Amino acid sequence: MTDPQTTTQTTAPQNTTDVFVDFLCPYAWRGVELAAVLRAGGEAFTLRHFSLVQGNHADNAGQAETAWWLTDQSAGEGSEYQQGSLAAFLAAQAAARQGEDAAWAFALALFRARHEHGQPLNADTIQAAAVQAALDPERFAADLSDDAGLRATLRADLQDAAEIGVFGTPTFVLPTGEAAYYRFENLTRDPAQARAWWDLYVTVLRDGAGVATIKRARNRPARRA
Amino acid sequence: MTDPQTTTQTTAPQNTTDVFVDFLCPYAWRGVELAAVLRAGGEAFTLRHFSLVQGNHADNAGQAETAWWLTDQSAGEGSEYQQGSLAAFLAAQAAARQGEDAAWAFALALFRARHEHGQPLNADTIQAAAVQAALDPERFAADLSDDAGLRATLRADLQDAAEIGVFGTPTFVLPTGEAAYYRFENLTRDPAQARAWWDLYVTVLRDGAGVATIKRARNRPARRA
Repeated sequence: MTDPQTTTQTTAPQNTTDVFVDFLCPYAWRGVELAAVLRAGGEAFTLRHFSLVQGNHADNAGQAETAWWLTDQSAGEGSEYQQGSLAAFLAAQAAARQGEDAAWAFALALFRARHEHGQPLNADTIQAAAVQAALDPERFAADLSDDAGLRATLRADLQDAAEIGVFGTPTFVLPTGEAAYYRFENLTRDPAQARAWWDLYVTVLRDGAGVATIKRARNRPARRA
Repeated sequence: MTDPQTTTQTTAPQNTTDVFVDFLCPYAWRGVELAAVLRAGGEAFTLRHFSLVQGNHADNAGQAETAWWLTDQSAGEGSEYQQGSLAAFLAAQAAARQGEDAAWAFALALFRARHEHGQPLNADTIQAAAVQAALDPERFAADLSDDAGLRATLRADLQDAAEIGVFGTPTFVLPTGEAAYYRFENLTRDPAQARAWWDLYVTVLRDGAGVATIKRARNRPARRA
């Protein structure tokens, strides 16, 4: 270990990379796993929330300003997706009140429960994720009951996402401002692989070509003769 | 020059990279300029056609099979976009009858007329592009009059594009089968830069992450404090 007092830090970012996620989304899960590995290696990432149900809602289609907000819906309203995603978002806000590490541990536990183990986004799954993340259970219960407060912080995330123009998850916003959806099919928890996948993404966003989109065709052709 | 009889060719691709384009699209223009630079350096690219008007047509929305084909429309039918794109496609088919170099020269001339010089996709612009590409004028006129034949070869491109799942232009299909839309904002005619932009794209498509999409958020946030 070098002495931070005598070493100028040149490689770590000055600010954090925001990662916008929705617990509904398996690609957000892979993105959070990737970010968690890099975070464990000392890079700063901050969990933010974007609602796919809100983003895809018919009342918001083609609107310059968001008309339909997930945070204005009652807990028992709407589709199973809507209810599950709202419950998960509010629980994540409550977990974050126990600190940044708690927020990440809870998010990872809940994403894995949903997308690795096929659990529904309901109260039981949320409680199990809180246990796995070693949250203080009494404090978590108390914070969960502050529905208005949790909705207010969630709303701030949804507003920032709308301002940035987030349309899917995971979307990463780099400290230097570049913001893009990054969808990849494979899961990694290997530090070197995570670093390589992340560096490739950052390289694309900063490349002189000004890459706006790389998106595979829907049907992948077989290797040609 | 090395003697092809005694040299094993190891760097050039075995097959060609197909590039699907629509003359309507400024991103296709940049993609064709990029491919033309690499082609001048010895890499094999083949011009193919995908119709944005057809791809975005309401009659085709949500359909597994294409219901509305541009090649079934009469020349004077539909919007200005539809008429211009069909005329340009058919002219490109006619130019290609004079060989691959003629096809590229014509496509570059027509793309530049449209997107660099703001000309409409009409008969005058097409004739001027044919002159600039040094096509044989009599043969070009004769080939242009073979409407049914030109539509048949265009239709083959549109069918291949549908099968691959092309949804926008430019879409490149690598010799190894990877197929993706590649939208970038900047224009290059510099060989080293073109090579770097192309290599980055290929790297993304072959990366172990299994990248499906990198797409910028709609509003690019300013650099954060």
